[in-house]
Amino acid sequence: MELVATEIDIGTRTPTVMLNAEDAEALGVHPLDRVEIRHDSGTAVGIVETSDELVRTGRVAVTRPLGHVTGPVEVTIAPKPKSAAYIRKKLDDVELEAQELDAIVTDVNQDRLSDPELSAFVTGVYANGLSRAETLHLTESMVDAGETLTWNVPVVADKHSIGGVAGNRVTPIVVSILAAAGVTIPKTSSRAVTSAAGTADTMAVFCDVDLGIDEIRAVVEETNGCVVWGGSVDLSPVDDKIIRVETPLSLDPPGQILASVLSKKKSVGSTHVVIDVPYGEGAKVPSLAAARELAEDFSRVGEALGMAVECTITRGSQPIGDGIGCGLEARDVLAVLHGDGPADLRAKSVRLAQILLASCDVDASAEAILADGRALSKFREIVAAQDGDPDVTVDDLPLGSHTRTVTAARDGVVRDANNRLVNETARRAGAPRDLGAGLDLAVRPGDAVAAGDELYTIHAGTESKLAEAETFADANDPVRVGSTDEAFVEQYEPDDRPL
Amino acid sequence: MELVATEIDIGTRTPTVMLNAEDAEALGVHPLDRVEIRHDSGTAVGIVETSDELVRTGRVAVTRPLGHVTGPVEVTIAPKPKSAAYIRKKLDDVELEAQELDAIVTDVNQDRLSDPELSAFVTGVYANGLSRAETLHLTESMVDAGETLTWNVPVVADKHSIGGVAGNRVTPIVVSILAAAGVTIPKTSSRAVTSAAGTADTMAVFCDVDLGIDEIRAVVEETNGCVVWGGSVDLSPVDDKIIRVETPLSLDPPGQILASVLSKKKSVGSTHVVIDVPYGEGAKVPSLAAARELAEDFSRVGEALGMAVECTITRGSQPIGDGIGCGLEARDVLAVLHGDGPADLRAKSVRLAQILLASCDVDASAEAILADGRALSKFREIVAAQDGDPDVTVDDLPLGSHTRTVTAARDGVVRDANNRLVNETARRAGAPRDLGAGLDLAVRPGDAVAAGDELYTIHAGTESKLAEAETFADANDPVRVGSTDEAFVEQYEPDDRPL
Repeated sequence: MELVATEIDIGTRTPTVMLNAEDAEALGVHPLDRVEIRHDSGTAVGIVETSDELVRTGRVAVTRPLGHVTGPVEVTIAPKPKSAAYIRKKLDDVELEAQELDAIVTDVNQDRLSDPELSAFVTGVYANGLSRAETLHLTESMVDAGETLTWNVPVVADKHSIGGVAGNRVTPIVVSILAAAGVTIPKTSSRAVTSAAGTADTMAVFCDVDLGIDEIRAVVEETNGCVVWGGSVDLSPVDDKIIRVETPLSLDPPGQILASVLSKKKSVGSTHVVIDVPYGEGAKVPSLAAARELAEDFSRVGEALGMAVECTITRGSQPIGDGIGCGLEARDVLAVLHGDGPADLRAKSVRLAQILLASCDVDASAEAILADGRALSKFREIVAAQDGDPDVTVDDLPLGSHTRTVTAARDGVVRDANNRLVNETARRAGAPRDLGAGLDLAVRPGDAVAAGDELYTIHAGTESKLAEAETFADANDPVRVGSTDEAFVEQYEPDDRPL
Repeated sequence: MELVATEIDIGTRTPTVMLNAEDAEALGVHPLDRVEIRHDSGTAVGIVETSDELVRTGRVAVTRPLGHVTGPVEVTIAPKPKSAAYIRKKLDDVELEAQELDAIVTDVNQDRLSDPELSAFVTGVYANGLSRAETLHLTESMVDAGETLTWNVPVVADKHSIGGVAGNRVTPIVVSILAAAGVTIPKTSSRAVTSAAGTADTMAVFCDVDLGIDEIRAVVEETNGCVVWGGSVDLSPVDDKIIRVETPLSLDPPGQILASVLSKKKSVGSTHVVIDVPYGEGAKVPSLAAARELAEDFSRVGEALGMAVECTITRGSQPIGDGIGCGLEARDVLAVLHGDGPADLRAKSVRLAQILLASCDVDASAEAILADGRALSKFREIVAAQDGDPDVTVDDLPLGSHTRTVTAARDGVVRDANNRLVNETARRAGAPRDLGAGLDLAVRPGDAVAAGDELYTIHAGTESKLAEAETFADANDPVRVGSTDEAFVEQYEPDDRPL
């Protein structure tokens, strides 16, 4: 069909083509079908939407992802990409071959799939799982789709933590210990999605984290390590696109977690990786059994990718460290590097660092490197190399001046500090955008408290954000205290709904 | 956050809100999250997309489905609708309760779900299935979401065929027989989606099928029956929205088929229904076992909805009738009503009509009503009531004058006439839009043919459409002839791909 093309910007990255409903019927296409548009300088394939208001008959409105297409064009029905059939196979619970997963990844990377198709892939993987072979092939395809880094050293260390634990800011400490021991450790981290702070957000309190590939290389060559935002380098473009459709349904299928994490590690050139798998109520991984299975998968698939992957399984049902929020977490990191700070954050960081050192076959004590100040010196070097102030002290860190301290209403025992509620309270206070906003824990589950003892303090930058956080905290009790009786035995109260 | 709203039309029915990426970050929202927009005259909830080009900071672009929103507004994070959590439950293979399915259907009907969410529901139903209780509740919710018809008679008959069989235009014949026997049968039918003609398309050759509810009522009160397009009345709005995302992945989960068909029957006020379930290679239902299971489900769920549902299981691996395409199928219908026409179409129509008469407890012979011309008279009445010419003859029907007859290249036996390929050839020739386009079968699988015997004739309105159909047919052989040896025993040729 001969139509006249005009350009339209509807803010989408999907190559959308808008037809008048009458022309679409004449052409025999429906919304979400594909058409090929042949014009003077080539052809492009777009996904059909119809509109009677935006497009007159005889016209076709072409969105930006298809390039600049105007004037007379020939529009014909185009077949679905093959990857649509492979997605359908996954929904039918048929194992996908390497080249089928590669076709899906390529089409995701090129934005060739509609949202319903991409969502069907993610839900298919969620409902039917991925075998180890599929996970391996998916990971390899995801690595191939992005940039990769290479290093002129035989050992490149890395770490990752499956998310969900509030605080838990071990990365800057582990990187400092490893780099101080002479190990190359180019760490890319994420920003917060649903939490109060990501490692990249916290590190941004100290220095620049938005580095290009050449800058990363320069920092690592100078200091052995770095802590930068992974999103500023194009190492895993497909992962970002998949996460976009996972988020609305809070889907995080294990096969996708494996491929997401391992593709990032492989892309950055890592050879030895430690992966922390926190499990428990409120963590991403619900049970010890599931954590062990995921750890086994990580090791096996990592090995097939040519990486030595060590996994740690940790309790993930409560926060690690006192501070929740960028500035408060930065304070905890600096305190641990100074030989002080929350005991749980210190112990976890040292243990992860020691396991990674052993995996890299480096004969060094993580505890000693931290205790004698070498880790702190290395951290200062990295901060300086990333254009931060190496002489930063706790007093320089942002801290919201509008505060409210929440105390125990009764004598008793702290029953739980819920990761999700603690994160959400900090977010209501302004985290992660307000670097000084957050929640500062004074207790941990199991601690005995007396009425009036501090449980936590909320920090916010304005009175209104503080009020927002207080309202949420009052309604949801992020830190709960039970009577000594109830601490270990809670009597179940059946609800009164009809059966 | 205070922003200034402007209107934008991006042709979507989803209530989309476009934010500048910087404002989205400040607000802590990501694409596909929700925001609430509070303005002078109320509040509205929209799904977030971000764009740096379409929206400046400080602005928010609001699409039409949210109503006319302009000027200063307060934008805050809004929670996901509860139905998102229920969709997630379905993906986790947890049985949904009635009110959970109702929440999903309500949100689909109100366009409150994003495409990834809606797609996740369909794929979840596909991957994990629906129990009979879930199917019942889904169907009830779908009925509640649309208009319903009621009739002042105790018995209202209806029929439906699970699609996939080319030709198969039994409906106008069955309706004519039942209406002639005095049974109320208000039949709503569909237009073609991927086939060469739907019942509504074929009936449109004779008369108007685009009737409103009052017009349908008038036709049925006058003649007992009608054959109209279901899409012109708002009987199943949710079904249409679900089909939109099913189509790109050719998903048709059984639970969804049941809910789709039964909700339409219930909405139209039917009490006694016959449902034809064709099975076999190329049909929607692949096996006899699957057909029996679907039939059992139809009967059980139909009964729970207060309808008597009889199912027929028929061979669905080859076309029924000679003509494929609107005008050619109309010709077959008229021929059968005149006591002539393809034997398979005649026999199937009479049998379905007889089963439906018996179900309605009407003591009448479908064969006799057809043979003595009462069905033809009734058909003419219905055509006249729907503003068509009651005296139509075969010569009045549209028939493409550009033709090519394809003949057998060898002596042998017709091995198969593939539904999909036959439909697709007819579509390339111009069906369903060109009423005279299609394919006219001269043989059926199993027929012995001599070299040079006609297999089928393609009809098209123009030489170029004829050429397009010929090219497709030459490449795909919609009707295949094998040697007598091969007719029943085909030797398998392994492909030469590596393992």
